[in-house]
Amino acid sequence: MRFDVTILGSSSATPIYNRNPTSQALNINERFYLIDCGEGTQQQMLRFDVKPGKIDHIFISHLHGDHYLGLIGLLSSMHLNGRKKPMHIFGPPDLKKIIDINLECSWTKLNYELIFHPLKNTETEVIFENKDIIVQTIILNHRIPCTGFLFSQKKNLLKLNATQLEHYQVGRNQFLKLKQGEDFVNENGERVPNSVLTIKPEDPKSYAYCSDTLAGEAYLPQIEDVDLLYHEATFMHDLLARAQETYHTTALQAGEIAFKTGVKKLLIGHFSARYKTLDGLLEEARSVFKETDLAIEGKVFTI
Amino acid sequence: MRFDVTILGSSSATPIYNRNPTSQALNINERFYLIDCGEGTQQQMLRFDVKPGKIDHIFISHLHGDHYLGLIGLLSSMHLNGRKKPMHIFGPPDLKKIIDINLECSWTKLNYELIFHPLKNTETEVIFENKDIIVQTIILNHRIPCTGFLFSQKKNLLKLNATQLEHYQVGRNQFLKLKQGEDFVNENGERVPNSVLTIKPEDPKSYAYCSDTLAGEAYLPQIEDVDLLYHEATFMHDLLARAQETYHTTALQAGEIAFKTGVKKLLIGHFSARYKTLDGLLEEARSVFKETDLAIEGKVFTI
Repeated sequence: MRFDVTILGSSSATPIYNRNPTSQALNINERFYLIDCGEGTQQQMLRFDVKPGKIDHIFISHLHGDHYLGLIGLLSSMHLNGRKKPMHIFGPPDLKKIIDINLECSWTKLNYELIFHPLKNTETEVIFENKDIIVQTIILNHRIPCTGFLFSQKKNLLKLNATQLEHYQVGRNQFLKLKQGEDFVNENGERVPNSVLTIKPEDPKSYAYCSDTLAGEAYLPQIEDVDLLYHEATFMHDLLARAQETYHTTALQAGEIAFKTGVKKLLIGHFSARYKTLDGLLEEARSVFKETDLAIEGKVFTI
Repeated sequence: MRFDVTILGSSSATPIYNRNPTSQALNINERFYLIDCGEGTQQQMLRFDVKPGKIDHIFISHLHGDHYLGLIGLLSSMHLNGRKKPMHIFGPPDLKKIIDINLECSWTKLNYELIFHPLKNTETEVIFENKDIIVQTIILNHRIPCTGFLFSQKKNLLKLNATQLEHYQVGRNQFLKLKQGEDFVNENGERVPNSVLTIKPEDPKSYAYCSDTLAGEAYLPQIEDVDLLYHEATFMHDLLARAQETYHTTALQAGEIAFKTGVKKLLIGHFSARYKTLDGLLEEARSVFKETDLAIEGKVFTI
């Protein structure tokens, strides 16, 4: 099952040096999920060929402009381009007010249904589930209420071994039971163990998105062992005081968090406008956690 | 006196083919005036080296997203980059509500003063004046209240002729009177005509911005003889019915308006996303008004 993330923007606060504010597009089994939507996200989607029509769920972490100011434009363009199917938006309760006033002032009635899911931000909650994934919030610690998101693939069903099915003459009506782990008993009452007829599927994968936050302890249990952790790393560690004052994380701290939680891979982003090049941030995170990459716009990371 | 306009965006409705939604930066005597501010305007300003710090006045024509959705991001970035001097915003009354709710929801208190000037949209009004220019609204005819803007340079003072001043031994204390057109009378009571001591200044220039509107008659007297007319030309004339239905203008109509009003030059923009190339629109407008140009992003037009 495809599970990858395309970086659409990774600048913090102000866009600069052609770095756009935060947005990411997750592709999970050919369904698309947008995480955050900074100004210019729809332009970035055009640039990196992420089709708005394939997105049915948008997750907004918090109401600092660099994480949501592209949302109204994207929703309007979907409307103007003839979207009919519903759109689900998950975000802070106040986001609904912002959407409503923009639509009202432009005399716009969307020609598709907009279903708004307000996030609690007091405790972790499961906010979405379908056949492929479960999405939970992660309570972060920022200057204003801010949630991260944990996307966990569901356990995959067993795969059928075609050669063995033919050999043991297993009928189609048994396939689902086999996929669910049952043994096969033939007409003569002979039992064939499930392991002979099936192949172990891939382990389910997980992706955690943590932006913006003071480096903390509270949310670490939730992101333990995830396959890919995106964590903000706004500053280098020489600016630790500034990071703490503004409720952000340094690249070194992001590396430490990845190390402590045993994640497989770390992706850092949300870079301060002061960094024209990003090598320093990468080096710093890698000094404690080797498997680190930079969230560069247009890059696709397979989970 | 410098008087030019830099095109920051000229797409209608949805951004496409690297055309950004509408925004223009006017430079009048090294003061900057921003007209409309579609999503991504601050990124365009970075790209075309228009310094946000030099802008003290922003004019918003109407509340369709492609004309204002970049405003909150721009104001936020100015705040984050330490702006202290006041910012004047001219726009539809509801724009204030949109700005306020965005600031409120992000718990932002701007560290500069934001002075909001609501536009009437019932009749033309002078909304701004300084030593260089006067700005008047133009009442347009769109689906929602929409105003254009007429920027008129004030009559320039006479310029002093240095050689003649020396010849007639004119003291510095006479300079302002001469610039204002008075003759010079020396100690012996001899009169030297003003025309001997001064040089005629350039004629004052004017720029009219008309986007978005149904091609109409009502606003034509106001834009007569302007030096540069920016007029929207969303569609080609084969889509006249569509233009009328959506309260927009065709390229042919824009050309006709320029011809009728005797403007010196026409600039067309606000191109529909359906036009991948713009040659057809340009040709159509030029078929009735030769002095037409396309509002291409990054281009600077001297008025």
